[in-house]
Amino acid sequence: MSKKNAFYAQSGGVTAVINASACGVIEAAREHSDKIGHVYAGRNGILGALHEELIDVNEESVETIAALRHTPSGAFGSCRYKLKSLEENRAEYERLIEVFKAHDIGYFFYNGGGDSADTCLKVSQLSETMGYPIQAIHIPKTVDNDLPHTDNCPGFGSVAKYVAVSTMEAALDVASMCATSTKVFILEVMGRHAGWIAAAGALAQQEEGDAPHIILFPEVAFDKDKFLKKVQDTVDEKGYCVIVASEGAQYADGTFLADAGTTDAFGHKQLGGVAPTLANMIKAELGLKYHWALADYLQRAARHIASATDVSQAYAVGRAAVEKALEGKNAIMPCIVRDQGPEYGWSIGEAPLSEVANVEKMMPKEYISEDGFGITEAGRDYLLPLIQGEDYPPFKNGVPQYAKLKKVLVDKKLEDGFKG
Amino acid sequence: MSKKNAFYAQSGGVTAVINASACGVIEAAREHSDKIGHVYAGRNGILGALHEELIDVNEESVETIAALRHTPSGAFGSCRYKLKSLEENRAEYERLIEVFKAHDIGYFFYNGGGDSADTCLKVSQLSETMGYPIQAIHIPKTVDNDLPHTDNCPGFGSVAKYVAVSTMEAALDVASMCATSTKVFILEVMGRHAGWIAAAGALAQQEEGDAPHIILFPEVAFDKDKFLKKVQDTVDEKGYCVIVASEGAQYADGTFLADAGTTDAFGHKQLGGVAPTLANMIKAELGLKYHWALADYLQRAARHIASATDVSQAYAVGRAAVEKALEGKNAIMPCIVRDQGPEYGWSIGEAPLSEVANVEKMMPKEYISEDGFGITEAGRDYLLPLIQGEDYPPFKNGVPQYAKLKKVLVDKKLEDGFKG
Repeated sequence: MSKKNAFYAQSGGVTAVINASACGVIEAAREHSDKIGHVYAGRNGILGALHEELIDVNEESVETIAALRHTPSGAFGSCRYKLKSLEENRAEYERLIEVFKAHDIGYFFYNGGGDSADTCLKVSQLSETMGYPIQAIHIPKTVDNDLPHTDNCPGFGSVAKYVAVSTMEAALDVASMCATSTKVFILEVMGRHAGWIAAAGALAQQEEGDAPHIILFPEVAFDKDKFLKKVQDTVDEKGYCVIVASEGAQYADGTFLADAGTTDAFGHKQLGGVAPTLANMIKAELGLKYHWALADYLQRAARHIASATDVSQAYAVGRAAVEKALEGKNAIMPCIVRDQGPEYGWSIGEAPLSEVANVEKMMPKEYISEDGFGITEAGRDYLLPLIQGEDYPPFKNGVPQYAKLKKVLVDKKLEDGFKG
Repeated sequence: MSKKNAFYAQSGGVTAVINASACGVIEAAREHSDKIGHVYAGRNGILGALHEELIDVNEESVETIAALRHTPSGAFGSCRYKLKSLEENRAEYERLIEVFKAHDIGYFFYNGGGDSADTCLKVSQLSETMGYPIQAIHIPKTVDNDLPHTDNCPGFGSVAKYVAVSTMEAALDVASMCATSTKVFILEVMGRHAGWIAAAGALAQQEEGDAPHIILFPEVAFDKDKFLKKVQDTVDEKGYCVIVASEGAQYADGTFLADAGTTDAFGHKQLGGVAPTLANMIKAELGLKYHWALADYLQRAARHIASATDVSQAYAVGRAAVEKALEGKNAIMPCIVRDQGPEYGWSIGEAPLSEVANVEKMMPKEYISEDGFGITEAGRDYLLPLIQGEDYPPFKNGVPQYAKLKKVLVDKKLEDGFKG
């Protein structure tokens, strides 16, 4: 069997550690240069394959590839591009395989969430029926922590650490000023469907009663009266109240709070967001002075405060993808397996893509406290190990020194462009 | 002369390093226990003095005081309470001096911005005329960097570093996704009157053309057409555009953008903020997909990414306050003096409070680039040294381990409470 090339692509929203997975893939592939030829990376994710825009990773130095480990976001470019179903657009999948064939690619490493696991699986299946079999390995990545079979998802631990640290720091700010100023602080975090990221805010608590005092999860129907009472009670008792709100917080009927706030009584579109909606509610009903922050991209790009555990795991699943491919595995996802027992430890396992694709793992009910505003001990036991350890990037001129790639494109071999 | 006690209070909005100044004051005072008796701290700033709520700093261990150096926000409590003018409320000042007299306080260390410098000066003057002279030393503190006579203000360098790092990281996120997703990212930062904090965003730039591509300062009148053209041109050229906007950005007539966005055509109040206002404008006029973040308290509380230079300077002005008091100085502020010459270096000088109180130092025009959307080399030369060095706090359980004070109150000695 001749030596095949590998294709690596980043998919969907990026994270602080997805490049650590890229680093793992590339370093492992380079160690096995007797079995793997070139590593190509998709320029802007899977679009790079469709458009035959392949970045020649061989042009990047050992130092640059090592620096990917501490560089946030998608260094090769990612994209929000969901391939249609096989029935709807078989040509798209055929195009992928055509490009892979033209560049002698035998390994497809796709680094993403649930949608990309599905694409990965289909590429593997269709390539088989087209007589050009490709080993397709999915590398897990998502800040949403919603992939099944893996104990947690690379990318989540670092967002969780950012949210815990930011909540703790902002809470100290509010506490110190609350006698004469702001009484309520709201931090809006990501998580449209699952409350994992909001739950991580609870890791700011060192003792019972510490901030955050209220967490709003998408999984718990928002009850305005109960919420406002809890805010007032907390302010009465502590002097201030800190809230971590998931962007997906919603009423019992499924209406998002963010949407609820975006239209006024006359039907005019207003600027939305959960935090300003809650702030407005608190001001109108309780008359309390508030402040709010919207972390947005800052949270998933915050490599400067990444979890060392997360970085190690992201790197490990990247390496494992290559090693498993070389063992002949196909249509699988390396995943993180938590050790049994009281001490936290982990190893790399694997899951078949047929069981990963399009399955969302929600936060277990038993992780949410009875009043719906916090997490349980079980939730804390699950979350706490994921934010352990600091893994600071090197700094230069006062700011992190992140990798800059050359991104040299490989010459095209196909005459026709992609007609997507 | 008998040994006098000292009173320390924190004033106004807190910073990531104001407690480093407290640490400097307390450690220096303890080294001079032959000359300074107890150190008392105001519970919630100057209110603690007015209400005779004095925290006995002697009750805090050496370790706790040392930990203040890496703890953000006001550990003793701060407040937004501006003393009225002497003419309007002489009783307030007399009350302060009465409390100081009751607790044998001879040194008043007031850690704050322009307003507190003014209070500090008045206390010194009035105490003299009342026959109970107090040495009043003002310790500079403000994220706004707007105090005169000092080269920069403790607190600013850490916000600047946070804004530079966050801008750099979010820009990588946008860059990696811009082919198919968000084209414009806006980070809203503090600075109602002066654009120092927004200017710090420019320190994310490593090479010409790097993000942020647009900075909006309060000092430069907002020109909507020019702004939108710059956004579109940047997206056309780079594929994306990153904007750092000061909360104080305003039109030529002085209307704040944040206010401009808070009322719709029917006069209904809407939720404001500069970032959502700009985002709305970009969406409506250019049809570009946007994201925005509002850093709010996260920026001034972010001790985890503090500037080591800022921490050292905050500590040094605290120590210097005590040392200068022991030299017999009164009504002064220790300040930071930048060395002459190309290499950055600094020392501690002093300025008379009469020249500090109520004077705002604006950003020099020559620090803002000709097009009004960035900073000049002179601006960069001024700012860059202030964010140098990392000074990470210790971590435990994945989050920073910040000081927790006992805050034991001293017994009251005055029969009457404060009638403020």
